[in-house]
Amino acid sequence: MMGEPFRHRLRVRYHECDPQAIVFNANYLAYFDLAVTEMWRETLGGLQAMFERGLDFVVAEVRIRYRAPLRFDDEFDVCLAVAEMRTTAVRTEVTVERDGVIAAEGELRHVLIDPGSGEKTPIPDDVREALGRYVL
Amino acid sequence: MMGEPFRHRLRVRYHECDPQAIVFNANYLAYFDLAVTEMWRETLGGLQAMFERGLDFVVAEVRIRYRAPLRFDDEFDVCLAVAEMRTTAVRTEVTVERDGVIAAEGELRHVLIDPGSGEKTPIPDDVREALGRYVL
Amino acid sequence: MMGEPFRHRLRVRYHECDPQAIVFNANYLAYFDLAVTEMWRETLGGLQAMFERGLDFVVAEVRIRYRAPLRFDDEFDVCLAVAEMRTTAVRTEVTVERDGVIAAEGELRHVLIDPGSGEKTPIPDDVREALGRYVL
Amino acid sequence: MMGEPFRHRLRVRYHECDPQAIVFNANYLAYFDLAVTEMWRETLGGLQAMFERGLDFVVAEVRIRYRAPLRFDDEFDVCLAVAEMRTTAVRTEVTVERDGVIAAEGELRHVLIDPGSGEKTPIPDDVREALGRYVL
Repeated sequence: MMGEPFRHRLRVRYHECDPQAIVFNANYLAYFDLAVTEMWRETLGGLQAMFERGLDFVVAEVRIRYRAPLRFDDEFDVCLAVAEMRTTAVRTEVTVERDGVIAAEGELRHVLIDPGSGEKTPIPDDVREALGRYVL
Repeated sequence: MMGEPFRHRLRVRYHECDPQAIVFNANYLAYFDLAVTEMWRETLGGLQAMFERGLDFVVAEVRIRYRAPLRFDDEFDVCLAVAEMRTTAVRTEVTVERDGVIAAEGELRHVLIDPGSGEKTPIPDDVREALGRYVL
Repeated sequence: MMGEPFRHRLRVRYHECDPQAIVFNANYLAYFDLAVTEMWRETLGGLQAMFERGLDFVVAEVRIRYRAPLRFDDEFDVCLAVAEMRTTAVRTEVTVERDGVIAAEGELRHVLIDPGSGEKTPIPDDVREALGRYVL
Repeated sequence: MMGEPFRHRLRVRYHECDPQAIVFNANYLAYFDLAVTEMWRETLGGLQAMFERGLDFVVAEVRIRYRAPLRFDDEFDVCLAVAEMRTTAVRTEVTVERDGVIAAEGELRHVLIDPGSGEKTPIPDDVREALGRYVL
């Protein structure tokens, strides 16, 4: 039985669009980041609580495939599914959907680091379990 | 005898332009900030050195009057003149020039704060003197 | 009897904050723009409908006074009141409020231009009337 | 015999950094875009000339692996090597270098489209030849 991805609704802001009147490619990464921030709010209590606990997930790798442009005022969902959890890393699959059309798809790989040393550190069990809700 | 304003040359980046193919209004403030950063590099050794000395100028007020649009690839100068130095505040006049045309003009008011307390603090004499080069 | 300003709720995005962990000064203008876009959606049917009708309001002047910083995840309202309507221009007063505190206040002056000629053009009566809802 | 990659020098702007005082991940894509724009200026006469000729390369896919953070004021090079040219697509390998250290590496895939129809269109021979300078 498959669960549902985490879904975050956004609307394209005017200044996120370039002279071709479509969302500039870099802004998709900002959208991904906003959705991940909301997923972490729901599952882990939010960035601030995470930092206070010493949980610092940094982006190690991203991939985006652009399929259909987004334009000013478009409403769209950023959908996240946790694809893999390893000792220190989480891989998340991302799709950007607008009216049932996949506008973009991609992937994020985050690594958990110790804020003191900056070294990779194992993902605690409770974090693993909380994120498990979005392993589809 | 009048001196010359501080002058910083920039070029419009594609993603700084909006669907009307002109620079989005908020980006002018980023341009102002870049020019001020360079003026401080020349006169005060740069932001990093300033922070280490406990010099933290925060933007208290801005004003911009847009006169002619900037477009992708336009080269332009942000020109700064220190208009007034008070006990804790500096007022800087800004003009954005492209090929001898004033594209925008404005003003920045910075206040010096103590990074520890966050309170306003008097501008040291050597800072006052260094910035004096651009009092026209 | 005073009406209520137009109010648009936003939340600070992580990447809108700078290394001092406060919202970078230029981003306030983007917030202003977002709120104005929503006010126009409510009163004039939205930017797209306005462009189709040949209504193009361009920003001619802005002013911001920063009073208290905004930080990541802060929720705040951008409040707009139409302060003055002249033949071709509208002046809007802006306050940024967070938990009853005024984080910033400012002003926008828009000028209506004819998209064909780029020249200033009189604000039509129905537009004047629709915006009148936010003349306080 | 290997040629040299195209190299574009940039400096980190203050507002490109986030509260952790490192460049926000999305901004690397803007850096990639700036470098590609300059490579096209050198090899193809620049975006404006390309648009006038009907040459519109759109980003179809990106990949970035972040290896070491960039911080405010860091100077770095974005290095581009054309890795593959197919009928309608160009794949470009990207490395971001700061003082001999690879801060990030990635890849861009652009597709040439006909601005009229929006359909993929074959890359003309002279474009292929001009970009060939950076096939290593």
